[in-house]
Amino acid sequence: MTTKWVYTLDELDEAEAAVDGDWDRVRGLLGGKGANLGEMNRLGVPVPPGFTITTEACNGYLAAGGQFPQGLWEQALAALRTMEEKTGKKFGDPSNPLLVSCRSGAKFSMPGMMDTVLDIGLNDQVTEGMIKLTGNEHFAFDSYRRLIQMFGTVVLGVRDEPFEDVLASYRDRRGVRTDADLTGDDLRSIVGEFKEIVRRHARIEFPSDAEEQLRMATQAVFDSWNGKRARNYRDAAHIAHDLGTGVNVVTMVYGNLGEGSVTGVAMSRNATTGENALEGDYLTNAQGEDVVAGTRPTKPLQQLKTEMREIYIQFEGIARRLERHYRDMQDMEFTVERGKLWILQTRTGKRTAQAAVRIAVELADEGLISREEAVLRVEPEQIEFFLHPQFSREAKAGHKVIAHGLNVSPGAATGVVAFDPDLAERWVKESKRDVVLVRPETKPDDVHGMLAAKGTLTSSGGRTSHAALVARQFGKPAVVGASELSIDLVARVMTVGDIEVHEGEWISIDGTTGEVFIGKLDTVVPDMDDESLARLMGWADGFRRLGVRANADYPADAVRARKYGAEGIGLCRTEHMFFEPERLPTVQRMITTQILAERREAVEALLPFQREDFAGLFRAMDGLPVIIRLIDPPLHEFLPGFEELTRELTDLQIRVTNARTLEKVEEITAKISETQAMLDKVGALRESNPMLGLRGVRLGILIPELTRMQVRAIFEAACEVTSEGGKAVPEIMIPLTSHVNELRRQREVLEVEARKVMAERGIEVKYQFGTMIEVPRAALTADQIAEYAEFLSFGTNDLTQMTFAMSRDDAEAGFLMRYLADGILPANPFATLDEDGVGKLMRLAVSQARKTRPDIETGVCGEHGGDPASIAICDRLGLDYVSCSPYRVPVARLSAAHSALRSKS
Amino acid sequence: MTTKWVYTLDELDEAEAAVDGDWDRVRGLLGGKGANLGEMNRLGVPVPPGFTITTEACNGYLAAGGQFPQGLWEQALAALRTMEEKTGKKFGDPSNPLLVSCRSGAKFSMPGMMDTVLDIGLNDQVTEGMIKLTGNEHFAFDSYRRLIQMFGTVVLGVRDEPFEDVLASYRDRRGVRTDADLTGDDLRSIVGEFKEIVRRHARIEFPSDAEEQLRMATQAVFDSWNGKRARNYRDAAHIAHDLGTGVNVVTMVYGNLGEGSVTGVAMSRNATTGENALEGDYLTNAQGEDVVAGTRPTKPLQQLKTEMREIYIQFEGIARRLERHYRDMQDMEFTVERGKLWILQTRTGKRTAQAAVRIAVELADEGLISREEAVLRVEPEQIEFFLHPQFSREAKAGHKVIAHGLNVSPGAATGVVAFDPDLAERWVKESKRDVVLVRPETKPDDVHGMLAAKGTLTSSGGRTSHAALVARQFGKPAVVGASELSIDLVARVMTVGDIEVHEGEWISIDGTTGEVFIGKLDTVVPDMDDESLARLMGWADGFRRLGVRANADYPADAVRARKYGAEGIGLCRTEHMFFEPERLPTVQRMITTQILAERREAVEALLPFQREDFAGLFRAMDGLPVIIRLIDPPLHEFLPGFEELTRELTDLQIRVTNARTLEKVEEITAKISETQAMLDKVGALRESNPMLGLRGVRLGILIPELTRMQVRAIFEAACEVTSEGGKAVPEIMIPLTSHVNELRRQREVLEVEARKVMAERGIEVKYQFGTMIEVPRAALTADQIAEYAEFLSFGTNDLTQMTFAMSRDDAEAGFLMRYLADGILPANPFATLDEDGVGKLMRLAVSQARKTRPDIETGVCGEHGGDPASIAICDRLGLDYVSCSPYRVPVARLSAAHSALRSKS
Repeated sequence: MTTKWVYTLDELDEAEAAVDGDWDRVRGLLGGKGANLGEMNRLGVPVPPGFTITTEACNGYLAAGGQFPQGLWEQALAALRTMEEKTGKKFGDPSNPLLVSCRSGAKFSMPGMMDTVLDIGLNDQVTEGMIKLTGNEHFAFDSYRRLIQMFGTVVLGVRDEPFEDVLASYRDRRGVRTDADLTGDDLRSIVGEFKEIVRRHARIEFPSDAEEQLRMATQAVFDSWNGKRARNYRDAAHIAHDLGTGVNVVTMVYGNLGEGSVTGVAMSRNATTGENALEGDYLTNAQGEDVVAGTRPTKPLQQLKTEMREIYIQFEGIARRLERHYRDMQDMEFTVERGKLWILQTRTGKRTAQAAVRIAVELADEGLISREEAVLRVEPEQIEFFLHPQFSREAKAGHKVIAHGLNVSPGAATGVVAFDPDLAERWVKESKRDVVLVRPETKPDDVHGMLAAKGTLTSSGGRTSHAALVARQFGKPAVVGASELSIDLVARVMTVGDIEVHEGEWISIDGTTGEVFIGKLDTVVPDMDDESLARLMGWADGFRRLGVRANADYPADAVRARKYGAEGIGLCRTEHMFFEPERLPTVQRMITTQILAERREAVEALLPFQREDFAGLFRAMDGLPVIIRLIDPPLHEFLPGFEELTRELTDLQIRVTNARTLEKVEEITAKISETQAMLDKVGALRESNPMLGLRGVRLGILIPELTRMQVRAIFEAACEVTSEGGKAVPEIMIPLTSHVNELRRQREVLEVEARKVMAERGIEVKYQFGTMIEVPRAALTADQIAEYAEFLSFGTNDLTQMTFAMSRDDAEAGFLMRYLADGILPANPFATLDEDGVGKLMRLAVSQARKTRPDIETGVCGEHGGDPASIAICDRLGLDYVSCSPYRVPVARLSAAHSALRSKS
Repeated sequence: MTTKWVYTLDELDEAEAAVDGDWDRVRGLLGGKGANLGEMNRLGVPVPPGFTITTEACNGYLAAGGQFPQGLWEQALAALRTMEEKTGKKFGDPSNPLLVSCRSGAKFSMPGMMDTVLDIGLNDQVTEGMIKLTGNEHFAFDSYRRLIQMFGTVVLGVRDEPFEDVLASYRDRRGVRTDADLTGDDLRSIVGEFKEIVRRHARIEFPSDAEEQLRMATQAVFDSWNGKRARNYRDAAHIAHDLGTGVNVVTMVYGNLGEGSVTGVAMSRNATTGENALEGDYLTNAQGEDVVAGTRPTKPLQQLKTEMREIYIQFEGIARRLERHYRDMQDMEFTVERGKLWILQTRTGKRTAQAAVRIAVELADEGLISREEAVLRVEPEQIEFFLHPQFSREAKAGHKVIAHGLNVSPGAATGVVAFDPDLAERWVKESKRDVVLVRPETKPDDVHGMLAAKGTLTSSGGRTSHAALVARQFGKPAVVGASELSIDLVARVMTVGDIEVHEGEWISIDGTTGEVFIGKLDTVVPDMDDESLARLMGWADGFRRLGVRANADYPADAVRARKYGAEGIGLCRTEHMFFEPERLPTVQRMITTQILAERREAVEALLPFQREDFAGLFRAMDGLPVIIRLIDPPLHEFLPGFEELTRELTDLQIRVTNARTLEKVEEITAKISETQAMLDKVGALRESNPMLGLRGVRLGILIPELTRMQVRAIFEAACEVTSEGGKAVPEIMIPLTSHVNELRRQREVLEVEARKVMAERGIEVKYQFGTMIEVPRAALTADQIAEYAEFLSFGTNDLTQMTFAMSRDDAEAGFLMRYLADGILPANPFATLDEDGVGKLMRLAVSQARKTRPDIETGVCGEHGGDPASIAICDRLGLDYVSCSPYRVPVARLSAAHSALRSKS
């Protein structure tokens, strides 16, 4: 028995049988396009008749050095006869010609990588026949010249330029813009010139025999599988090189055969809103590419209901059937040729985030998909859409992008430029203006301005710069490191090339894309309260194993986090409270004084602030756990910068040499000694590698009064909330632990103070004691650590830095980008958890810690906690929860559900 | 049967039998002192008769709240009777009184922590009897007043001051300096006053009954086990609190009973040289404390040979017997009471390093100990003694210590102060003067001065400062961070308090202790070629499993390392070659240029330097492996400092404002823009955490031409040496690997270049490719790493930094010292490998790497490789070798032998 190399679209069942009904193997045999055409056909959808030559035939052809396998061509010709029968047309017959397309179609989609030839079957005689049949000379010769051009380039390897040159010269001669405006006569002579081009460049006559055209086109498609473009694409997309491509030969249909012909595209549901209603565009008497090109105004699909009622109803039914079959919203191409509807293609439709959610929920409601599938249908990142204002595509189209920066905090912001935080705040408060704060970079002093502004734009800084962190924390849009911007704080102007933007002028920034626009763009605000979203998230919560908490430093953040579904606070960074302008001077006094009493006094002064913040967190999280991390950052972060002070000192020294009066000299000299004193203090705290220096628990050990104060504030707040009838669930966390003894010491200090406060208030508060795991040694000795820690929270940012010996700021501004571009690292380990290295350390830590304390609570705080791929890793590691910024909580909930569902299947 | 609470010194066999002959339990039962007295007695050594009350009795007494256990006192009295029989004296009998001492003696020595009462048995009548017997009123009353004073303070809890006040007032009255100069009459009235003190302060009469004295003294010794001092000591020394103390009651003997009595101390061999000859000091008619106090000039033991020939011969025999029994050199106390020799104590004698080696070797030769034991008898650190000049104790005694710094590089150096490296070099070369280079801190520019000088002294910097590293590398004594020093480079003077040392004046520094002296101290130079040492090291080499290599960057180092027994180079830091003054400008050009061609040119210019150095290493190590690490440090280390440049710029800016002529202004302005340009370049390379930044393999990836050049230099050198008939064994090492892909990339570059060079020369050189493991991720993924690495070398300095998240420089200047002082860390992890954390990571790496490549070579380079405790850990981890600075190689060889021998037993 000879091998079956060719399947007509009616023979899908046979193809299935040949591969034991395995649909994946059907796609492997026929290619994705061939299988889909067959499937539509089997569903009773009107697909133009055709056949598919198998990928096995392709492999056989290539293996034989370009020889068709035995029997292939005979089977193809037989299939062609079947097409003739079905269409009543005849290939190569001028009186009633069958024209076909010849397209590649591999198992996996490789868009644009392989070749296609349309309108096969035309020659001089057939073209004349077409003119007779259609009365449309332009159409016939245009089709003919397209065939010659495509055949010439694709099959015969002629470059496209000579063809295009001819077209251009005709357009010039006629003074028209498009080929559509050329006359039939023009096209007739163009055909002549095209044939001459083929003759000259390919040194053969353009074949006038239809079957010869098809044979050569088929070979060309086979050959294109091994083309350089295709090979490179497969390398990049990790597609095997031995799959081969199928070849689909399908009857050409035309939407440009007069008023009874139309062509269009349609979605089975609204791709923007998700509404369950057919939508689309079409054109009468036109070709598919005209709809896409937008050269003629299209008509909305609804109009077809009036124009071609029957067709519309038929189409509606088909759309419904395809949706039901593919169990998802479909994006379809159709053509009506002289009153007969043909579906040319169907595929899963692209959609907005909003539509994705609604469609998934409604498909589940309709019983087409399960709720599990509905949840998996929405990508976690799409949820971000519901949390931040967005620029519409139209709004963006009308404005100029003047710069690109890093998209560090999503959402759209528009406002007038303010170059300093005080002005930003004043404009917002007093003039009720919308403001975008623009700075070279931001510092803790700028936070009030960032909070007042709609968004922040900086010209320097990376993904972990101060601006980025603060913006994400507060869900404020931000674009940072837009290095094309030059900001002149003295002249109050920013410049990009020759564009100048002065303070008070409107700009817009898109924190989702990193784009910066001149002018005021309209924003739309989607809604997290969206009913479909709420239902989807409810289902997701039912499926996930992993808990989701939020990182929140302020009561307002905690309120928002809870609204977004956080099940607790996974990280409250107490030091953020220290950066508040009214507290910073006290903090600086605490750090710089050498006198113990003065230090104690400063520490005490901070107590009420901390207590108040903690009480707010406990109230917001009423009944849910709140992890409070004791002070973490190096102390110098609270002081003016060393270099800033050095510059100041230099200025003063220059000024003193230039001073003309004794008073002036004395005044500047006083300032110099003051600045010098601060510089000395800052200098004393300087470290060559602050990341690896005096910070975290090391501070708590060296300044136990600080730990004591923070613990007191926590317990006073907890007692206060308890006495109000609330429920405070504090979990106290030690940062940067590397040795169990650090933990033991801190726990001693903590327990003494906690007992003292609770005794004073006569209230018992249940609490837990635990530690960050952000130092490799802590992970390695988690068995020892777990003797004192009731919970572990992986600080994966620092853990990644230490495990890789890579400072994120330095690396992302430098060699890390090169590493990613060169593929040395498969992904940025600061964005997605490095499972092989950091993940191995985490797994080791969890398993060891559980040996000591089986019920130890484990989680991740830090940015990985909001990254879907990292969340899946955390789920696999068996952690109890992830914690992320409030705005990422919904994303994390959905990611956790995805992970749980995927690991089930 | 009642428990046996008391053993006479003759009953050691019974005590042994009671604990099944387990000598450890004998010491537990009788205490160390009691057991030793019994042992000496059994050996036939004349020990004054006595008995021991067991530790069990002590525990029983304490458990019963201060009641003697049943039968104890009766047994003690019976033993006392035995003593009376043996001595022919009678306790409490004025006519022939037995006097005894009562001392504590626990299982583990707790020197000075518990109590002792001497001369028990004296009262008014017995004292008169003693005077009659000895004719020595002074002796008798002095003994009596001592008993009352000791009894008062130890047993009755009277403070010592009232007793001392009385003595002081008598001395004043007599106008004498010591109590020995008081008359018998004085002492008689002092006894009266002492009894009055007891009566007044303790509110009881001093007990005149001898047995009552002994009973109360015994109770006091028991009680002292639980004294605060003793408890604290046991806590610190990790001694259990439930061991209890024994009580030793021993006959008093006196060396001050006339000319036939002497007292002295002796060593069985020379404690300084190790020579096998008795040495010691004694005094005639004196008490033991007189020998120690040095108030009277002592006589050398050899003189006893003439004075008391019989006694000397007896003592010589005893010393020999004790040495044979204890199998080590003994330190003995002896007394001759009226012609009768008594041995009061023997213990293992302290000795110099030189003596330790000679004694160990000779004891082995004599068959007293095995060669294994001989090797274990010498502490690895003692070997350092043979490598560096030393100040003698006498030399130090005559000079004032003016400051203390960190003892970063051992050995003694003396020379005139030079405050800059050029001057140091000139003085050494031209004036042949010995110089000590004194700098606030050192930089690569200072290395020629450090090499010329005898030693280096700095006022700042820590154990890993440049000065420390370079000094250790070259075995030059150095003291760094002597912060009491104030160095004025302009006035050319250093100041400590009100002492000034000007340039050209003599100072001496002791790199072994960190001391700084004014003046020129004599040094002695021990000899590594010492015959005993050579034999001992030979034995050690036979016992060890672990290989020992050296870290050496220069051929001269390699020669020295080989002389000291290195079996290869474990680390050649190629960048040290870049710091050489004639090469640095080229290196700076390579770093700062933006032009690729210029960079290539600079890289090429470095090639000959590197090739020459490598060839030198290969020649020195002929046939032994040489690990060459490709460039590692952050590039900015090769450039002037950012702050230095900023200061320069400030100065220039001030100068330009003050400039009076246009020429001057132009000149300074030009200098400003030049400095600014360099500052910009340096600024661009700055990183917030350089330790975690662009260094190691990251440089090799970003600047592949650098890797290529270094590889070429290595292979050209190897080919050159091969063609001379030598054998080069290069192992090429990639630093700071964190991901296997880095290694793969570098290996590709390397192989291409290596093949090219070998083809050019027509010579095949066998080589290995490997990597440092100094980043936690590399250790965690060692299975992947081992696919490309044929050897792994743990860079434990960096690995410790990353694993602890602790920058060594910052930590050692700050919180780490506090951590060590507070016991949060048991040891400095940069000095001794942290087995729990870093060690665990290393173990994981080794086991995983061996899964991929069973024969992978593993070692440690970095400072831990020279630390005995760390070497033992490396041995346990099963590494193949350790590598350390040439001067630590002998230490490492001995440590490795110790580890092997200890793990056997």
